[in-house]
Amino acid sequence: MKLHFLGTGSSYPTTKRGVSSLALQQDDGSVWLFDSGEGTQIQAQKVTVSRQKINKIFITHLHGDHMFGLPGLLCTISSQFGLTEEQLKKEVPRVDIYGPKGLRRFIYTALSLSRSPLIFQYCVHEMVPVSSQYTEDWGDWDVDHSEPSATHPSELPGVTIEPSVTEDGNVAETSFFLTFYVIFHFFSIDNDEWCVQAGWIHHRVPSFGFVINERDRAGTLDKSKLMSLGVKPGPVYGQLKSGKSITLENGDIITPEMVVGPPIRGRTLVILGDTSDASPLAHMIKSCDVVVHEATHDDNLMDKAAEFGHSTPSQAVAFAKGVNAKVLLLNHFSQRYSPSSKESLKEGEETVALLEEQAQAAAAGSGMSVQCADDFFVYEVPGTGRASMRV
Amino acid sequence: MKLHFLGTGSSYPTTKRGVSSLALQQDDGSVWLFDSGEGTQIQAQKVTVSRQKINKIFITHLHGDHMFGLPGLLCTISSQFGLTEEQLKKEVPRVDIYGPKGLRRFIYTALSLSRSPLIFQYCVHEMVPVSSQYTEDWGDWDVDHSEPSATHPSELPGVTIEPSVTEDGNVAETSFFLTFYVIFHFFSIDNDEWCVQAGWIHHRVPSFGFVINERDRAGTLDKSKLMSLGVKPGPVYGQLKSGKSITLENGDIITPEMVVGPPIRGRTLVILGDTSDASPLAHMIKSCDVVVHEATHDDNLMDKAAEFGHSTPSQAVAFAKGVNAKVLLLNHFSQRYSPSSKESLKEGEETVALLEEQAQAAAAGSGMSVQCADDFFVYEVPGTGRASMRV
Repeated sequence: MKLHFLGTGSSYPTTKRGVSSLALQQDDGSVWLFDSGEGTQIQAQKVTVSRQKINKIFITHLHGDHMFGLPGLLCTISSQFGLTEEQLKKEVPRVDIYGPKGLRRFIYTALSLSRSPLIFQYCVHEMVPVSSQYTEDWGDWDVDHSEPSATHPSELPGVTIEPSVTEDGNVAETSFFLTFYVIFHFFSIDNDEWCVQAGWIHHRVPSFGFVINERDRAGTLDKSKLMSLGVKPGPVYGQLKSGKSITLENGDIITPEMVVGPPIRGRTLVILGDTSDASPLAHMIKSCDVVVHEATHDDNLMDKAAEFGHSTPSQAVAFAKGVNAKVLLLNHFSQRYSPSSKESLKEGEETVALLEEQAQAAAAGSGMSVQCADDFFVYEVPGTGRASMRV
Repeated sequence: MKLHFLGTGSSYPTTKRGVSSLALQQDDGSVWLFDSGEGTQIQAQKVTVSRQKINKIFITHLHGDHMFGLPGLLCTISSQFGLTEEQLKKEVPRVDIYGPKGLRRFIYTALSLSRSPLIFQYCVHEMVPVSSQYTEDWGDWDVDHSEPSATHPSELPGVTIEPSVTEDGNVAETSFFLTFYVIFHFFSIDNDEWCVQAGWIHHRVPSFGFVINERDRAGTLDKSKLMSLGVKPGPVYGQLKSGKSITLENGDIITPEMVVGPPIRGRTLVILGDTSDASPLAHMIKSCDVVVHEATHDDNLMDKAAEFGHSTPSQAVAFAKGVNAKVLLLNHFSQRYSPSSKESLKEGEETVALLEEQAQAAAAGSGMSVQCADDFFVYEVPGTGRASMRV
């Protein structure tokens, strides 16, 4: 499982750096995309991330540098599926899109006015922000975030994901292909392998972070012990792994506890949108392998960062420390910082190396690994013995 | 005056070629942009086209590869103006945007949902298509092209440009900063130097071509004749150029006809949107220096071109010949054709050189110059003695 940083710049794309987009590529090649700023589809062509393998798209917030590339990306995915009519009769591909209220209106308007039919079906699931996410001046600008009254011909109805505001952790449940659990101020989706939850974080517009929890897996089978107990390879291995006891021909009962190791903890990735303070989401993180956190400005510009709802390296480190992250990856750099790989710098020109230095200084002694992710940086998330699931 | 081809691909951008965008750069550096597909703002950074100098944007039609880059471009123009508050108090920059009905809704929706304030003011002038522009299946998909009920804080009201449907060439006139003359099935804007008209052309969605007419200029002063007549350099030179006679101290009357050459014809550029047939616009073209015409597919794929409302090289040549164009520049190539500059082609890989060969074969003997414009091709429009205006 790899994280491909497709765009790591803030505000606007340059020839040296794209705007926000991050691809989580699973071992089978399928891709979940987090944000899609303008040019994301071009960036994806430069690396081994197949646009046709994108089946879920998460939009952290509605700022242009995080979503203006979405309509074009959807059109290109459609034009390049290369499916025959025969294949389409069997199964129409589907892309699920998750993001804040208003996202559906944006996608619908862009795709409908451009009269873009899609070969696949798409479905927008909107998260309703909590009142704390709106700035005081929000009402000065009256914007219609409501869903459009019409539906795109390729669109399936999505789920409106409401935050629970009950203090007792009451779980509301609604069903549509996937099941959504709406729990105290966060949102979650479940599938067989993953549970994805969203929580709100501080920014100038409603912004979310996603907590991606891999399911815990059954422990490893102790094959030499199985052999010594006289259990031969076969379907019974799967039964034992799934927690069932078996009875041998000689009457002996073999329980899972005898031959299966302790459960293997699933990984947790935390991917955050723009934020000046992600602490409202911290309570959702039980353990944490990787945090992707923005660091728009360096620590010397903390006031500027705060003014625009952004963070600096030391603030990102403070959050990551608080949730005991093993690895912190920084992105969303102001275009004032050139990529660290740039040669022949002008006098006074700063690179993200400055941000990385500040982050590493702040993280010193914590045991946490910290890195700035320039465009096309690939982070391979350490495995959890997935191979052992293939007994 | 230069035409910068920023993006010459159709459908979707690749790492080798952008989607539709063409910059007309005036001698003073100011820019009129024609279409703005995704990534236009990145392409503009690669050449000497300043995004801050764009003051008019023309959108030929609402397909995504012609307009999905517009919201991001407007945001970036705004973030980079670099004007002080003092300068802004004196004059707020302004960008006028022209395009088909529905464009305002697209821009408003994208800029408002992304909550993007702009430092400049923008104004969308929408052209109302004629009934011939709608395909038979248009009604199958009910899309709201109406103007949004709210206004972006940086938006000024635009003009709805209606086509006149009277047969007698009746001129309707409406005024808003610029004057719009709405004449039988075409639309025009005037400023001091230029008259821009739009006419409808055949495509799968309402698509327009723009006819950009430079004003005719006064002829060149014959300085040696002026000296021999005893007229010394001074303000009288300007009076003669502007068509006024002067009286010398000795009583001799000098008329413009005696010392000013014949008027210098203004240039005419024709920039077309996607089309399978641009003939409905041909009647608007009195003389023609340059035609920019799409050639999406090569002549062997004429059926495919027709199916999707596009043209082939020989069809583009036929149109350009019909309007007596001196120069024909082709763009909007299917991504199946690699840029002609590409080295080490795969077996069977085609480049736009094929399209250029077909166009040149079709144009042979006509005296018309024909060229395929790959990305970043710059065409310098031959001058008309503008320097003579600076006597």
